[in-house]
Amino acid sequence: MKPMPRKTANRELDALEVVAGNGLLHRRAFLRGSAAIAAAMTGYAVSRSTAAEPLADDPWSLVPGGITPPYEKRSRFEEKVERTLSNPNGEPRNMHSRTPHHRLNGTITPNGLHFTILHSGIPDIDPDRHRLAIHGLVKRPLVFTLDALSRYPMVSRMAFVECGGNSAPLFSPQPVQASVQALHGLVSNAEWTGVPLSVLLEEAGIDPTANWVVAEGADSLAVSRSVPLGKALDDAMVALYQNGERLLPGNGYPMRLLLPGWEGNMNIKYLRRLKLTEQPAMTYYESKIYSQLLPGGKAYQFYFLQEVKSFITHPSHGMAMQGPGFYEISGLAYSGNGRIVRVMVSADGAKSWAQAALQEPVLSKAFTRFRTPWRWSGGPAVLQSRAWDEASNVQPTRAEFVAQRGELKAPPPVLAFPNQHYNSITSWAIDGSGEVKHAYA
Amino acid sequence: MKPMPRKTANRELDALEVVAGNGLLHRRAFLRGSAAIAAAMTGYAVSRSTAAEPLADDPWSLVPGGITPPYEKRSRFEEKVERTLSNPNGEPRNMHSRTPHHRLNGTITPNGLHFTILHSGIPDIDPDRHRLAIHGLVKRPLVFTLDALSRYPMVSRMAFVECGGNSAPLFSPQPVQASVQALHGLVSNAEWTGVPLSVLLEEAGIDPTANWVVAEGADSLAVSRSVPLGKALDDAMVALYQNGERLLPGNGYPMRLLLPGWEGNMNIKYLRRLKLTEQPAMTYYESKIYSQLLPGGKAYQFYFLQEVKSFITHPSHGMAMQGPGFYEISGLAYSGNGRIVRVMVSADGAKSWAQAALQEPVLSKAFTRFRTPWRWSGGPAVLQSRAWDEASNVQPTRAEFVAQRGELKAPPPVLAFPNQHYNSITSWAIDGSGEVKHAYA
Repeated sequence: MKPMPRKTANRELDALEVVAGNGLLHRRAFLRGSAAIAAAMTGYAVSRSTAAEPLADDPWSLVPGGITPPYEKRSRFEEKVERTLSNPNGEPRNMHSRTPHHRLNGTITPNGLHFTILHSGIPDIDPDRHRLAIHGLVKRPLVFTLDALSRYPMVSRMAFVECGGNSAPLFSPQPVQASVQALHGLVSNAEWTGVPLSVLLEEAGIDPTANWVVAEGADSLAVSRSVPLGKALDDAMVALYQNGERLLPGNGYPMRLLLPGWEGNMNIKYLRRLKLTEQPAMTYYESKIYSQLLPGGKAYQFYFLQEVKSFITHPSHGMAMQGPGFYEISGLAYSGNGRIVRVMVSADGAKSWAQAALQEPVLSKAFTRFRTPWRWSGGPAVLQSRAWDEASNVQPTRAEFVAQRGELKAPPPVLAFPNQHYNSITSWAIDGSGEVKHAYA
Repeated sequence: MKPMPRKTANRELDALEVVAGNGLLHRRAFLRGSAAIAAAMTGYAVSRSTAAEPLADDPWSLVPGGITPPYEKRSRFEEKVERTLSNPNGEPRNMHSRTPHHRLNGTITPNGLHFTILHSGIPDIDPDRHRLAIHGLVKRPLVFTLDALSRYPMVSRMAFVECGGNSAPLFSPQPVQASVQALHGLVSNAEWTGVPLSVLLEEAGIDPTANWVVAEGADSLAVSRSVPLGKALDDAMVALYQNGERLLPGNGYPMRLLLPGWEGNMNIKYLRRLKLTEQPAMTYYESKIYSQLLPGGKAYQFYFLQEVKSFITHPSHGMAMQGPGFYEISGLAYSGNGRIVRVMVSADGAKSWAQAALQEPVLSKAFTRFRTPWRWSGGPAVLQSRAWDEASNVQPTRAEFVAQRGELKAPPPVLAFPNQHYNSITSWAIDGSGEVKHAYA
């Protein structure tokens, strides 16, 4: 028998060609213009009546609205979009707040929802009294006020900041049933503006024996970390602004160290002191908390880089699918090594993969939003994403990752995992009822 | 006489070569590495003592800090950074709120400080009850809920939104003495995420006789504007997210029309209706308020585009210089025609110009931050910026602009000017005392 003739005139179906198992469509559907996608969307509008007019007049259309405030807040209907808190009553221990990635879209984390970890609460710093000192192995120790720093040349850049402990629940031997906020909420992305650290260090005059910069915060624990001088002179910044406005208190107001692509804890908040030294200080946070345990009982001494990673935010754990048909699979990818060059998406648990569209501009060491069109059959599916960066690093499979880095024998009673730098693939399993669960696949 | 030998070893001075009158330095100082800039900055730190240790322990360093909230607010020390309000008591007329560009840096306007103009206040819309209808000259009228729209493919882009009336005080025959916020505060920039309008129109099926899309808001005035179908099918978006989170109420929660690079008023907020028509509707806002008066008594019928423009934010009116020496001149440039390709800066009232550094990434129809190093002598200076876009448009001089578009005979009693689309050069005059004033030059 001859095969059925291909309907070459049907551009819509062409554009939505299936490119991987379980209904993944070609990303060029997004590029080919809107007709193709529109054809796929038929039926998602609420009503398709010829009597679309008149619309009901809702109560808010019948009376004048409210007064514009000097600094605007969100709608009262959005107040449920919050960071989740690990220590809401301020007990004397650290406090995590996690970004609700499943409720956001785009690449920027709004300042009010940027993740934070505080080890002794948020200090209430008077910016006019705060000082930053540069000393140690320098020719000329210097002290800066915020006003003095504001006279220096500035740079702006988008950058993610990620806690080394982000995604640590995935060290569990069984998949922890929790949202993308609980699993991956300790990473956020913002436009940071400030003074290149290299300018300040050069002004102080770097002694040839200096190899490290020990950075210290003005919080009551004086959280401090040692930074290799090479990073300090590369793309480090004393950040003063976050998404256009002054840093928020939980992110280091009035100034923080920004080390693009490096472990969040090293991006010292409330920055008050930079001491140039020959050796690292081996502070509490670098020698104990953020050291990496390995399967053989040893540990990495240092592990500064946040490696290539991605996760799907839409759909994700806890969401209910709205029935078979078209969906956009969307998520975030980033790498401390530079730009993301490719994200592949699977709907059949890694049996087959489709290349995702990357939202331009794709920026170095910043969130990249990826999107893939998908036609869900209504049956079981396992969604995964896998990212590559420009330095040819690829996000490891969970099997590869566990072989090298180990996993826990049993999950701890709360979401507090003793290991760091998990960057393997996340899987969301969808069953026939449309429920989305965390899975290992 | 032989010229003095050039000290080629002095890289610092090389890098800071003067390239235009009154102390403008070459932008490559920013690119050459930090030593050059550091040399220029010598003396700006507060103290340069060898006794930089110990720093005083400020009170906030001696006690545990505050509790992390679910949605974070700014420091209490930043509460003075506000939008200025034209109608703070909510009288029955429009309300403007202006962005404090002189207090911000980078390119993103934080959501709480994005400019707004409301003609009948901010409606308190329940997103679950709000509907968007597409009807008129379409094959299939459609009605969408927010949930239905959330299933569609999305795009994200940075885009400025600017009121047609932004900068209108510069139609005054004398320079109005007011801050950059008062003069240019009706423009802001954000990352917007939403559904391409073309997808929704294609799904509805565009009748061949349709030329316009009349967009209407759910506010009590039902503000509406006619949009050429070509723009609606090009880069228009039904925006649902602003800098990652849902739109703020003053910016159209839960959905607005985004027409990148076009007059702010056309970007209809609280979008409830898109009617495809053969002719424009000639609504109040397009036929009266936002029409352009011309010197001969005539008016442009339509003037949708926000043309190429720039202004200096640092330093600017109302700031006091801190004494002679190094400063960074910094500001914003943008064009409704696409990308900014060049910004020139003058410190001597347009006698000579230096090319500014443009902060990457330079994005189409979005804010571009420009920066120029400058060594202020302490004497009189007139600072100006002038921008070019990728379509070869250049920001006009004030003389060119006034010749074509006219100016008022006398300024109105308040900052309410009857004309629109001012995009000429702004001048800041600095006198020997370091005071910065608005000037025409």
